[in-house]
Amino acid sequence: MTNATSSSSNGIQMPDPASVMVLTLAYNGELFHGFARQREGLLTVQSLLEDALTRRFRRPVEVVCAGRTDAGVHARGQVVSFEMQEGEKPSGLLMRSLNGLMKPGVVVTDARRARAGFSARFDAQTREYRYRVVDGPIPPLALGAFAWHVRKKLDLDAMRQAAALLAGQHDFESFCLTDSAKGRNTVRTIDSIDIERAVELGEEYIEVRVVGKAFLHSMVRTMVGTLYQVGVGAHEPEWVSDVLAARSRASAGQTAPAKGLTFWHVEYPDDVWL
Amino acid sequence: MTNATSSSSNGIQMPDPASVMVLTLAYNGELFHGFARQREGLLTVQSLLEDALTRRFRRPVEVVCAGRTDAGVHARGQVVSFEMQEGEKPSGLLMRSLNGLMKPGVVVTDARRARAGFSARFDAQTREYRYRVVDGPIPPLALGAFAWHVRKKLDLDAMRQAAALLAGQHDFESFCLTDSAKGRNTVRTIDSIDIERAVELGEEYIEVRVVGKAFLHSMVRTMVGTLYQVGVGAHEPEWVSDVLAARSRASAGQTAPAKGLTFWHVEYPDDVWL
Repeated sequence: MTNATSSSSNGIQMPDPASVMVLTLAYNGELFHGFARQREGLLTVQSLLEDALTRRFRRPVEVVCAGRTDAGVHARGQVVSFEMQEGEKPSGLLMRSLNGLMKPGVVVTDARRARAGFSARFDAQTREYRYRVVDGPIPPLALGAFAWHVRKKLDLDAMRQAAALLAGQHDFESFCLTDSAKGRNTVRTIDSIDIERAVELGEEYIEVRVVGKAFLHSMVRTMVGTLYQVGVGAHEPEWVSDVLAARSRASAGQTAPAKGLTFWHVEYPDDVWL
Repeated sequence: MTNATSSSSNGIQMPDPASVMVLTLAYNGELFHGFARQREGLLTVQSLLEDALTRRFRRPVEVVCAGRTDAGVHARGQVVSFEMQEGEKPSGLLMRSLNGLMKPGVVVTDARRARAGFSARFDAQTREYRYRVVDGPIPPLALGAFAWHVRKKLDLDAMRQAAALLAGQHDFESFCLTDSAKGRNTVRTIDSIDIERAVELGEEYIEVRVVGKAFLHSMVRTMVGTLYQVGVGAHEPEWVSDVLAARSRASAGQTAPAKGLTFWHVEYPDDVWL
């Protein structure tokens, strides 16, 4: 906060921070107890990052993130923001010095400034998650930390038919952790779900790419666990419509393991950047 | 060995093993003190594998490999062979039971039988190594264990010009560990060196793919360290011809770190498989 003020559109006097710093982060989820700061002594991405920022700027720094990730979930494009104070002009070396302070397991891949008032959470237009599944008897090696291994080959066509039924606007209560759903609006809109086979680091896997504005707690992992039931032949694709209609977590498939999930990308409007 | 014998083409009576078992292995080199068995207590791929095979077949088993890899070097397609004894008929479950006995860090990705006399080492027609370099200020995360990180962007065109001068038949003494080269024939033929940019797991890297029949000790890593000198602008591409001509390890670039290197693939004649 600074002492300067400006009028917001509703006429209330607001503090006028010089600008907002926005960082993009990649991290290996298996090394952290999730993104959000927890009780003292548990290593989280937020605690590591805020401690580094506090040392760098010599003042307490708190960040806002685009999406909290659970323990074990990876990120390729997590985004965090924090207000700069008047006179703070981070040099081009900010990224490098943060990467020096934070390693290993988390990397700052981009640093830019946004207009005052920007929030990594509230200004996000879409979020993309990617989930990797290695299907077949041979366990993944190089992809082992970043994929769920299932022994049976999955039927991609069936999974795609099921995924098409999940796209669009639905009440996703069946795909939300019970405690998180209680008394909350569980209607969300999924822009797209794409399922493809790919080979990386020499290992074949299935990638499920889900894009939407906002997600419920463990929603993507529950969608993947449900699509897995279809892929393995335990249910017909149409079953996912019954799962949606049931509005009960018990009707859906398992929560797929955290390590297969990567918070991939967040889209913001072009006009927020300075 | 069995008691059965057969005549080889030169008329000498030879033992006639029932057949040879051939396994393809992937492993994470950072977990092992290289491929080759060493003194007791050092974990190597060979010791882990032979111990598992000895338990599986209830007799001592020794394997021959297509190429020894140094500590820290990964494999995607290492190949090993060992003689089967008469009456030994490994089931389709061999791969699965070995993977259960050996994890983590090494995976059997293929198991097949070859004609008697086959050797993973001596029957190899070509070997392919791949070396990954992440160039730029942002350290790799998901690729961190499988790539060499250098801070400067490398000039691929210059590296390709230099690589073209290394392809073909040359005396590669300058690219061999001094001790290994002493008094040995250091002429080798490189079939191809391809250098491409790629993106995997969301991270950009340079891949150097080298194919040849046989390689000297640490030859690929020294080639990469030498190409790096060109890519970073410390030398012109033509310099590598001077390096070859010098026939002295001191003239070449550094030995690039082990973790960037993966023993990728071995090619065998089609007619060896049963």
